Amino acid sequence: MARLKDPQEIVDALRAGDRGALARALSMVEQGGRPARDIGRLAYPHGGGSYTVGLTGAPGSGKSTLTSGLIGHLRGLGERVSVLAIDPSSPFTGGAILGDRVRMQDHALDDGVFIRSMATRGHLGGLALATPQAIRVLDAAGSPWVLLETVGVGQVEVEVAGAADTTVVVVNPGWGDAVQANKAGLMEIADVFVINKADRAGVTDTRRDLETMLEMTEVVSDWRPPIVATVAARDEGIAEVWDAVLAHREHLESSGGLLHRREARLLDELRTIVARTLERRAYELTAGETFEELHQAVMARDLDPYAAAEKIIDNVA
Amino acid sequence: MARLKDPQEIVDALRAGDRGALARALSMVEQGGRPARDIGRLAYPHGGGSYTVGLTGAPGSGKSTLTSGLIGHLRGLGERVSVLAIDPSSPFTGGAILGDRVRMQDHALDDGVFIRSMATRGHLGGLALATPQAIRVLDAAGSPWVLLETVGVGQVEVEVAGAADTTVVVVNPGWGDAVQANKAGLMEIADVFVINKADRAGVTDTRRDLETMLEMTEVVSDWRPPIVATVAARDEGIAEVWDAVLAHREHLESSGGLLHRREARLLDELRTIVARTLERRAYELTAGETFEELHQAVMARDLDPYAAAEKIIDNVA
Repeated sequence: MARLKDPQEIVDALRAGDRGALARALSMVEQGGRPARDIGRLAYPHGGGSYTVGLTGAPGSGKSTLTSGLIGHLRGLGERVSVLAIDPSSPFTGGAILGDRVRMQDHALDDGVFIRSMATRGHLGGLALATPQAIRVLDAAGSPWVLLETVGVGQVEVEVAGAADTTVVVVNPGWGDAVQANKAGLMEIADVFVINKADRAGVTDTRRDLETMLEMTEVVSDWRPPIVATVAARDEGIAEVWDAVLAHREHLESSGGLLHRREARLLDELRTIVARTLERRAYELTAGETFEELHQAVMARDLDPYAAAEKIIDNVA
Repeated sequence: MARLKDPQEIVDALRAGDRGALARALSMVEQGGRPARDIGRLAYPHGGGSYTVGLTGAPGSGKSTLTSGLIGHLRGLGERVSVLAIDPSSPFTGGAILGDRVRMQDHALDDGVFIRSMATRGHLGGLALATPQAIRVLDAAGSPWVLLETVGVGQVEVEVAGAADTTVVVVNPGWGDAVQANKAGLMEIADVFVINKADRAGVTDTRRDLETMLEMTEVVSDWRPPIVATVAARDEGIAEVWDAVLAHREHLESSGGLLHRREARLLDELRTIVARTLERRAYELTAGETFEELHQAVMARDLDPYAAAEKIIDNVA
């Protein structure tokens, strides 16, 4: 089969179940620019049936193993599933910090499973904007479940995790792990907690830490995140994690919280798109001759940076 | 003495050596908004004599102890010094991750030393914009040396470290520490490397790792970052660190690199100010009735998010 290039053809093909077209569409989203936006625009009207489950936590907590376990569990239930693994890059090197994708190879030949990792910097607004576009593509392809796994615990990961309908935060037993999760801002986004590697000492302490921190967190919903202990490497507790996810989905759907959450998410995304577009415009604004004059005036301390910025902006808007 | 409130009076007083006024000015910068910009604008013409040395590295690497050692060393040389310790907050909790400020208490009563920590979120553009403003205030106060210490190794810290004339990256002995520094994007900003806690095993390995990574890093200058081993807790190697900093300064000044570096930094800052101002404008744009209609159209999938963003922007610029 010839490699498709036209965005409309690609979206038509992925909707018809063509996995090659799906992979191609996600590559285009990853690369950013006009083609990414075309794919997103064409895919968007055909979505809405997909439910996204985010998995986040510190590197080494066993997210990949848990994700792999969940894939197996979902396949056992006869469900198809897509996995989107997000690897933010270092701010300078552009190198992706890859998670342990090896375990997922078990599912590589299963037609009911689609796995993709993404580590883009080309997209306007970075991963925070590329991720919802990628989810839209998987949604349009008819994937009922999208598992969104993020590597690391930086601000980008927290933003990316915000693209999920249900967010699972993975910690490990032992002193301090829950505290780190809290510091990283994961407490506020957790719908389900998983204490993975629960065959190690310290499960009770970690559970108590999480409960204490949940007590201290401002309550914004009547959902109290359950805490599930797992040994993902031995497939222990996987069903319980999935049941907790389903319970949260049921809660969101019956309370109207799902619509509210998706509306809020879309609002954030719109704001980010607008801001990033204006930012790009700002960059263009600071490339001309007028700008060079202002830059020199600031260097000479005739003008302070904020006054110069005001002059630049007044020239446009 | 009555507490000063007028920005001009505050800047006059801090230039005359009033430490209370200096602290007040830095608080205003930290809080952000109009008063921060007034202080920055008034301080800016009176600066230019200060040299900034950044210290960065993972939590626990001993940056605070090293900073404290450098203060002692500078005081021994008869130099006055200011320290600005930057503590970025978690994206959600707003809680500052404080470094070990305790050791710095040794210098608390020394009139030649001014220590301040900053953990702001109120400032437009966050710490990346508040930090150069704070440095300008210390500069206007006549501080010949500003030690800029950052806590953590996230993108914010890398951005903040970029505000220094010379950047010292602190790592510890042992396998993997240098690799982590590289991943965090510290390799590209290091002018001097310090292997602190060099009484532990693994110094040779870490030195070799750093050298290997320096070989792999794209060369953009003819300065090769020296690697200095220290035991900051026992004041060992502190003089060597400072000598390396002075050698780098001498290199920058004789090569014209200092002016070039400061110009590039100012350009970045100007671009960030313009972008953040436009971002705020974008936020205002996405609060009205027109926006609510567009938001609903996107929710209904009649319009995709990027098309909606375009319509919003067309309404302004």
